[in-house]
Amino acid sequence: MVITIGRQYGSGGRELGKKLADQLGFDFYDEELVNLAAKKSNMNEEVLKQVDEKATRSFLYSLVTGTDIRGLNSPIYYEMPINDKLFIAQAEIIKELAQKSNCVIVGRCADYILRDTDVDCVNLFIYADMEKRIARIMRLYGLARDKAKEQIVKTEKRRKAYYNYYSNRDWGRMENYHLCIDAGEVGIDNAVELVRDYVLKKNK
Amino acid sequence: MVITIGRQYGSGGRELGKKLADQLGFDFYDEELVNLAAKKSNMNEEVLKQVDEKATRSFLYSLVTGTDIRGLNSPIYYEMPINDKLFIAQAEIIKELAQKSNCVIVGRCADYILRDTDVDCVNLFIYADMEKRIARIMRLYGLARDKAKEQIVKTEKRRKAYYNYYSNRDWGRMENYHLCIDAGEVGIDNAVELVRDYVLKKNK
Repeated sequence: MVITIGRQYGSGGRELGKKLADQLGFDFYDEELVNLAAKKSNMNEEVLKQVDEKATRSFLYSLVTGTDIRGLNSPIYYEMPINDKLFIAQAEIIKELAQKSNCVIVGRCADYILRDTDVDCVNLFIYADMEKRIARIMRLYGLARDKAKEQIVKTEKRRKAYYNYYSNRDWGRMENYHLCIDAGEVGIDNAVELVRDYVLKKNK
Repeated sequence: MVITIGRQYGSGGRELGKKLADQLGFDFYDEELVNLAAKKSNMNEEVLKQVDEKATRSFLYSLVTGTDIRGLNSPIYYEMPINDKLFIAQAEIIKELAQKSNCVIVGRCADYILRDTDVDCVNLFIYADMEKRIARIMRLYGLARDKAKEQIVKTEKRRKAYYNYYSNRDWGRMENYHLCIDAGEVGIDNAVELVRDYVLKKNK
């Protein structure tokens, strides 16, 4: 079973995923996916980190116009923007990991990538109201209020663009997920318990 | 505490609400709100049932243009379309009930109506994929597939218009709710347990 987590920036989705994985004895993947993709593709890890979960910038589109950029066998694979290469490498890794063991995967369109496989998925979305997210980011990164808010808005815009670009779905639209939790309202630890109970019920 | 339930038509939101109320010992209000509104406003119950959860039709808007139709003290209260009268009567009743006892309220913008009160609310949204909703409506009402689908699409359009008109919010947008559950995926009874556990955690 794979638990995928879509999350608003600052909602605590990553923390929830980590705790959930610990409690269920599942593997946990978030930024680790970049390292794995770097190894797999022989690309530079530091370069990949800079484009992780970011959609292709528009001036790079011309290279792939009219071609299914998600097809590994495309003849222009090596002319692709690095974001697309990373997406493809991560997608392969996500499919491999999903076959190997139970795991929690944060972001990176994992829900979409696994949609037509035989993997048993629980797709979560974690959100929280803006004030609570600002407070969390201020606390975690020692930022002033306006900087924290700016970082939330920018990161979220990128994530949304990334998800929508690679998935042809709407990021944060509830119908794409099985369970959506306002973690700001109920708290991370309660949300972890809820999801754990959900998973156990589904496995019954 | 009040549990409000927004729901896609055919998702089982009403059934979930009823079972939840039974398990928690809460009162339960759905269509009962129309009867209560009829009594309160001395309007005809059968007429009200026809406009329940429907937004004002456009040719009636002129009567209330430029006026806060939600203000009971408006001088043109008695010139209002019947839908607006029903909304106002239901809103008053919902506020009264929320003060009186723990309850579950299905639909009727209850989440929005109670937003600025001191009532402790859990706002749920229940959904399911279209195929499962069609199967449910076919089974419940003995309808053919195409009729069931038509009824879902029409009812949902009306509910959405009603909610958006009276609340100035987006119906079915996850940020308006604390917990959103795909009841088609996990099943009604499991969803009831999840919500019950959520409520108990919040009350701790």
